[in-house]
Amino acid sequence: MITSDKNPKIQQVRALIDHAKERKTSSSFVIEGVRLVGEAILAQWELQLILISDNLSPHGREIVAAARKQAVNVEEIPPQMMAKLGDTTTPQGILAIASLPVPKLPERLNFTLICDAIRDPGNLGTILRTAQAAGVQALVLSPGTTDPFAPKVVRAGMGAHFHLPIFQFNWPEIQAVCQHSHLNVYLASAGSSTYYWQVNLIEPTAIIIGGEAEGASQEAKKLASQTISIPMPGQSESLNAAISAGILLFETVRQRSQ
Amino acid sequence: MITSDKNPKIQQVRALIDHAKERKTSSSFVIEGVRLVGEAILAQWELQLILISDNLSPHGREIVAAARKQAVNVEEIPPQMMAKLGDTTTPQGILAIASLPVPKLPERLNFTLICDAIRDPGNLGTILRTAQAAGVQALVLSPGTTDPFAPKVVRAGMGAHFHLPIFQFNWPEIQAVCQHSHLNVYLASAGSSTYYWQVNLIEPTAIIIGGEAEGASQEAKKLASQTISIPMPGQSESLNAAISAGILLFETVRQRSQ
Repeated sequence: MITSDKNPKIQQVRALIDHAKERKTSSSFVIEGVRLVGEAILAQWELQLILISDNLSPHGREIVAAARKQAVNVEEIPPQMMAKLGDTTTPQGILAIASLPVPKLPERLNFTLICDAIRDPGNLGTILRTAQAAGVQALVLSPGTTDPFAPKVVRAGMGAHFHLPIFQFNWPEIQAVCQHSHLNVYLASAGSSTYYWQVNLIEPTAIIIGGEAEGASQEAKKLASQTISIPMPGQSESLNAAISAGILLFETVRQRSQ
Repeated sequence: MITSDKNPKIQQVRALIDHAKERKTSSSFVIEGVRLVGEAILAQWELQLILISDNLSPHGREIVAAARKQAVNVEEIPPQMMAKLGDTTTPQGILAIASLPVPKLPERLNFTLICDAIRDPGNLGTILRTAQAAGVQALVLSPGTTDPFAPKVVRAGMGAHFHLPIFQFNWPEIQAVCQHSHLNVYLASAGSSTYYWQVNLIEPTAIIIGGEAEGASQEAKKLASQTISIPMPGQSESLNAAISAGILLFETVRQRSQ
């Protein structure tokens, strides 16, 4: 049982929760809760450490038993330490340090989502979850997008991090990827006179979703072959970025299922 | 300048932020931030009180000047008190007490969204915002849905509360509304073999979205004339409730625009 805040493992967890730089330097991130740790084990994700406390549920204990079989280091800490350490308001008595993925770009892409400076962690996590469900092959994040391995993003992602390849690219790299796979690049833009259902999303497609506050960047506008809009019959200025992503991704699913 | 925490106006604001019961009893709720208070003024919404502090932006001060012309009571409080009082992490120096709406049901409905026990405030607020954008005529909340006038819902709603009629009904009332307008009632249900784009959403339509944790209630299942699913090509268990709502509402918009 670890009981000191000064323990290096505890300090590492805290640093990984709080600092994007630490996540990058040590190539790892923190996942919290029974569901996420269970998903990681099922996906045979590399876990460096699991911390548990005695309020962990019986289902959580089964997951820990499975992890022990995979030789994962498991340590117990007091529930109060877990509550202070974690980022969730209702800690479930389990968190883990997971290795950052080393994503591989498929040779030919035909369905890609590009997030252009999405800054809200909850939105980015929901976008990840939605992109995974829609069968997106690669999620590309432009410079200025919030860190996809921050606790709030991971929580809202609901396990998508273990299945969806995520790439943090600069704009020349994004352009190269789109050109290599001959992608039609559609930029969601409120002002466009072309509605999203009027374009052919069956062909190899990349969709760019911009941040809510600033909208699309200059680089995104340059890269896009076409802008598309979501018409809003109600008197309304805009949609949440994750909602826009959901509508466009599932229109792609719809067209490809016909 | 109000400087005491014990001031009855301050205590009322605190009670309205914290307690659904107080919102119901006094028929009012709290809105925070320049954008929301500005939207309320533009929508000629009844405001009972505006509190400001001296970090309010010039744009915020213009809004307050407009409110004063409409004879709204404006009081100043110290910024530290505003920070403690409000529910946002970055207070903009303005909040207001607004009257709860008295929504009127249109005589004939043809586009309705029914939220069935949506418990997450952020999700409910995003659903409101999305429903307004899609041109939903009435948002119906079943018993067990979180209070739509709680601070987090209002914040995520981004002003939808001032435009979209919101009804908190029990199931017999919901059934009566659907029957009165001869609505086809579609229930989003992951198990359905009918995809959402295979049904006719041009006819008068009600869509039921269930809570994420428990899914649809027995009453919702009984009321629905048809279940519909959103196919997920990716390996994924479910979508966020607000994302599901967005996909189904905008499929309705798409079908009706053809």
